[in-house]
Amino acid sequence: MTGPQLDVIGVGNAIVDVLAKADDDFLKTHDIPKGGMILIDEVRARDIYAAMAAAVEISGGSAANSIACVASLGGQGGFVGKVADDELGDIFRHDLRAMGVEFDSGPLKDGPETGRCLINVTSDAQRSMSTFLGAAGFVSPDDVDEAQIKRAAITFFEGYLFEQPVAREAFIAACAIANENGKRAALTLSDASVVERQASVLTDFISGHVDILLANDVEAAALFGSDDLDVIAEKARALCPLTAVTRSEKGSMLIPRDGDVVEVAAIEPPGLEDTTGAGDAYAAGLLFGLARGFSLERAGSLGSLAASEVISHFGARPAQSLKALAEKSDLL
Amino acid sequence: MTGPQLDVIGVGNAIVDVLAKADDDFLKTHDIPKGGMILIDEVRARDIYAAMAAAVEISGGSAANSIACVASLGGQGGFVGKVADDELGDIFRHDLRAMGVEFDSGPLKDGPETGRCLINVTSDAQRSMSTFLGAAGFVSPDDVDEAQIKRAAITFFEGYLFEQPVAREAFIAACAIANENGKRAALTLSDASVVERQASVLTDFISGHVDILLANDVEAAALFGSDDLDVIAEKARALCPLTAVTRSEKGSMLIPRDGDVVEVAAIEPPGLEDTTGAGDAYAAGLLFGLARGFSLERAGSLGSLAASEVISHFGARPAQSLKALAEKSDLL
Repeated sequence: MTGPQLDVIGVGNAIVDVLAKADDDFLKTHDIPKGGMILIDEVRARDIYAAMAAAVEISGGSAANSIACVASLGGQGGFVGKVADDELGDIFRHDLRAMGVEFDSGPLKDGPETGRCLINVTSDAQRSMSTFLGAAGFVSPDDVDEAQIKRAAITFFEGYLFEQPVAREAFIAACAIANENGKRAALTLSDASVVERQASVLTDFISGHVDILLANDVEAAALFGSDDLDVIAEKARALCPLTAVTRSEKGSMLIPRDGDVVEVAAIEPPGLEDTTGAGDAYAAGLLFGLARGFSLERAGSLGSLAASEVISHFGARPAQSLKALAEKSDLL
Repeated sequence: MTGPQLDVIGVGNAIVDVLAKADDDFLKTHDIPKGGMILIDEVRARDIYAAMAAAVEISGGSAANSIACVASLGGQGGFVGKVADDELGDIFRHDLRAMGVEFDSGPLKDGPETGRCLINVTSDAQRSMSTFLGAAGFVSPDDVDEAQIKRAAITFFEGYLFEQPVAREAFIAACAIANENGKRAALTLSDASVVERQASVLTDFISGHVDILLANDVEAAALFGSDDLDVIAEKARALCPLTAVTRSEKGSMLIPRDGDVVEVAAIEPPGLEDTTGAGDAYAAGLLFGLARGFSLERAGSLGSLAASEVISHFGARPAQSLKALAEKSDLL
């Protein structure tokens, strides 16, 4: 058990985002569902990229974005994920380590290139994501370091990876370590279509292993079969010790199994530029707060604050110190 | 002579920018001169990158940035430069082509990786650049396509490449084609230290081949041996048919050999974020205007407008349509 205590370890897609502006016609032409995420193969990735506008590359990946936000909040973070031994892989690794995040998963050999997420941002700030998983999909139980998981207050899993069978084994292995050592396991549902395809397997996984469940309102409705917030709260309590449902500008709802629902207000950004990473940032604030033993309200407010910063600019990782912002707001 | 008429072809470094925030201590620790550009080898590039903050990758290169701005102004642009057959090379090529720029130089085989410029931006918006040229330094006369140069009103060279002997041969070959076909050749001095090391060779090249010379005030002082603007104007007239001297917030001075100096005001940006690419953008506006036969004042004002947009955000390429901005200002 060498190394520092960690607030949150993320297990997820190691992916570089390729962000460009687009219009609705572009999305239609390329069959990209607006505001959603689709998985694409390498051929389609090349086709869409060739047609995209001039782009900016920024390290991404849902759980990795969250961990970057944890680090920006002043927390200790770790990440488990798979890049290839290539230039984008070097960039992904650099950007996490530059924030002080532990990232020691070795690169994939003899496999596909480092994954990338082609993100087309329309003028209404909606992001539509086409993901070529590449090496990212090859996270396996071998990447899970027992000593590292034991050092983390919370281990956090990204639902996007739930459909990769070997990655799911890695989730289960890491969850078992967390569960056995009195640490907490958290899961974000990531996408409503993942929930629809995997509902019963997901439900079993959550009830068996997960302490903290994160979902946006669409994903929660898909999982619980209702968009009625009271129904969601009732079913969430039956499934998981703590559930957080994010509702965009309506804020979020924290549902503890043994307590009253806590409503947390959203924080309006200085200017809405690009919603990429809003959920990832919210997760970071909430989980960092819970790892530090804050109240649900304060932890949720840290989530709102992180999300507000991230949607005020292009790209999913914080552009300024979230710690400094949180201190200004008396949340830290 | 197939293909469209081109406003400007740029010949320069094919480089991807790696932009991160830094403080003055970082620059001191790594011996990076503030506000300047140094060439570094691969080992030093790895060392500096490893120590840099989390970064954003955006295609760059001085002349390539200019051509991106020409395209954003609604002009037809072309680019000649060298990338490797790797991921950063693909990104560089994509980003130019996505803007409608012709870029057909084949990738370098069996050489170094695609070049990159590590740009540390301090809180005063100054950028300090450490460039690993990589494949970019291998531009050769073989990359110059005679038919393409003939299609361009102006061929534009980047002084940074002047110190690479084979690239310099490419400059001379392309200049000869432009000169013989009644087209204009333009050169930006790029950096005062290049001027200091190459003063006599540069002077010969300019007087023999160059129709339009671009320099900032520091580079002009280095070339002409004086920072007195009257002396600079007199010596510039003796050397070159048209010289443009940029003076940051003081605007620019256009010095035609056979006419009065034209003073062009700078345009204050909405907010100063990052001066990377200011000179490249100015060059684009000026050269595009001259290619279209605009007055010196109007062409210079397009330069001011492009520079103002580019320094108002992180990165050296325009984030919004320069054509739309210029139309709003009645410059187009």
